[in-house]
Amino acid sequence: MWLRLQSVCLRKLTVRPGYVSGVFDARLRRSVSHSASRAATCKALQYNKHGEPAQVIHLVDVDYGPVGAKEVLVKILAAPVNPSDVNMIQGTYAILPDLPATGGNEGVGEVSEVGCGVTSLKPGDWVIPKDAGLGTWRTAAVFSEDDVVSLPNDLPLLAAATLGVNPCTAYRMLADFEDLKPGDTVIQNAANSGVGQAVIQIAAARGISTINVIRDRPEFTQLSDRLKAIGATRVIKEEALRKPDMKELFKTCPRPKLALNGVGGKSATELLRHLQVGGSMVTYGGMAKQPVTIPVSALIFKDVKVRGFWVTQWKRNQSHDGRAFRSMIDDLCSLIKQKKLAAPACNEVHFEEYIKALNAAMQPFTSSKNVLIM
Amino acid sequence: MWLRLQSVCLRKLTVRPGYVSGVFDARLRRSVSHSASRAATCKALQYNKHGEPAQVIHLVDVDYGPVGAKEVLVKILAAPVNPSDVNMIQGTYAILPDLPATGGNEGVGEVSEVGCGVTSLKPGDWVIPKDAGLGTWRTAAVFSEDDVVSLPNDLPLLAAATLGVNPCTAYRMLADFEDLKPGDTVIQNAANSGVGQAVIQIAAARGISTINVIRDRPEFTQLSDRLKAIGATRVIKEEALRKPDMKELFKTCPRPKLALNGVGGKSATELLRHLQVGGSMVTYGGMAKQPVTIPVSALIFKDVKVRGFWVTQWKRNQSHDGRAFRSMIDDLCSLIKQKKLAAPACNEVHFEEYIKALNAAMQPFTSSKNVLIM
Repeated sequence: MWLRLQSVCLRKLTVRPGYVSGVFDARLRRSVSHSASRAATCKALQYNKHGEPAQVIHLVDVDYGPVGAKEVLVKILAAPVNPSDVNMIQGTYAILPDLPATGGNEGVGEVSEVGCGVTSLKPGDWVIPKDAGLGTWRTAAVFSEDDVVSLPNDLPLLAAATLGVNPCTAYRMLADFEDLKPGDTVIQNAANSGVGQAVIQIAAARGISTINVIRDRPEFTQLSDRLKAIGATRVIKEEALRKPDMKELFKTCPRPKLALNGVGGKSATELLRHLQVGGSMVTYGGMAKQPVTIPVSALIFKDVKVRGFWVTQWKRNQSHDGRAFRSMIDDLCSLIKQKKLAAPACNEVHFEEYIKALNAAMQPFTSSKNVLIM
Repeated sequence: MWLRLQSVCLRKLTVRPGYVSGVFDARLRRSVSHSASRAATCKALQYNKHGEPAQVIHLVDVDYGPVGAKEVLVKILAAPVNPSDVNMIQGTYAILPDLPATGGNEGVGEVSEVGCGVTSLKPGDWVIPKDAGLGTWRTAAVFSEDDVVSLPNDLPLLAAATLGVNPCTAYRMLADFEDLKPGDTVIQNAANSGVGQAVIQIAAARGISTINVIRDRPEFTQLSDRLKAIGATRVIKEEALRKPDMKELFKTCPRPKLALNGVGGKSATELLRHLQVGGSMVTYGGMAKQPVTIPVSALIFKDVKVRGFWVTQWKRNQSHDGRAFRSMIDDLCSLIKQKKLAAPACNEVHFEEYIKALNAAMQPFTSSKNVLIM
């Protein structure tokens, strides 16, 4: 009878185990932990040397497990291919894993087994990595309980898979540099990027206006309409930043307290020109591959503050209890549930067709995020 | 008898009136205030239009007075010619006075008469302007009591005359951007400027090491020795910033938390490279007339903070009670009295030979400050 119950529970686990609880749950956990003592195999996208992703990444079978007392076995559901993943494989990123390494730093998975000492997670929970470097491009992985944070398991899959980097970057940049109140203005370039779209939505949810700068393109109007549909107050072309029309614009909204720069070069300098006295420009990306150039007078007489933001460093600076991270994830999940925050446009690519996703992610200024579906 | 006493007091006033006090003082004040109801004449260096200082500045007689209830008559003793004074006359500075205007924004004077409602000052006090724009290149002036702040009248004259801008700039930059503790390091370019020399001395008084960058020159060794004599920990040439020797240097002192930039251009970018993770670069001048260029990676991955500082704005942002300003001036005067802070090298120029001082101040990278002695 005990064995039968156990096997029923295990079957349930693989479907939707969220409703397992109480004494029943405790027994189940023991049984699950016990069952994990066998090692098993999953598929992973690994690289042994740095280089161009499509050349150095290979799909391999890897062993995992057993699940230790404070560990969880996670079935990865979806994991995006971000520019920083590509840079990490190329060996040009600020942090690099030991080789061989599994690609991918973001994604969502479902807990399928928990170790006997795990207290914060149960089978069926959805989790995302707390930090970069876990290697999410695989079908399953054993993670430490402390390395992941749980999400509601009824979020849209793509929103969950893309929550840990871009929306967190947008959230922190809107929270940590200027005291923004409803009615204030934020200006940003790369407004169509993953971060840019999250900025638009989080700002709109808080009553903050956004001036969104994108490069000119044949489908400018459609893109502008799409960004306005998710909450952009204004969408303008890069060239417009240098035109006197900007003065007209600032008759209808206050000058920005905050500028968010994902591009660098001239675009950053132009953003800076429109900041209000004492405002901040925060750089989180450098797609133009050019430095940020600041007139001395802007620093001295306009007192602009020029800062940078890296969500990975922010996560690492968090205290061990992770309360700020938890609180941010809760806020973001709440926005997703209220349909105020959606994933950016995504191309879903089957895990085994990863080459397609890697090649697509190598294109500069891609307008859709490529997400591997496991 | 009353009249005779009064006239005796007035004679005393012009010599050293600091010891007049009590009832005697109160009578004196009334008498002084009364005596000031006559308008009088002084000499001033004025300009009616913007242009090259030596061409547009003229020595003229101007009327002043009478001294109002909340005003003081100040005999100006000494006033420097700063680069910002020159830019103001040229019309290129961030704030410009109404024309005609009297030149000069800094200097020290002695109170010779006080209005009947003045409570914080007495004849004989030394005062400096609280803000830019008072016009200090004159032999006497009537100022509002609130426009000046008193100093001990036994300070060295040149130290008092040059206290209000450069040492205040140095003091605030060392206090307001990073939490510096004894043993920490500050790196600065333009180390031989007025601000640079004040930074060296204030930092040394607090046990903070300074790495001082100057351009190469024939008399490098003498200048280096002079800066070391006032407290510089290390003096290096601009070229050295790009050399591997810097690594050796950082074996003997921690990497700087704070970089102070008075130059801009490449020099600023080089300073930035040596900052510790999370450090700040504060720009207060741009002698190279080139913008500050920052690699995107320094902002994102090294989390460097790029700021500016303008002492005039700082003074204007102070609360009406001016407590922070008073406290800073007290600290700086205390350092001067302890011989830990001296005026930079100065050329004393007689007031009526102002053309000499203006021409000298127009030279780029002058190594002495020109001070008009009235």
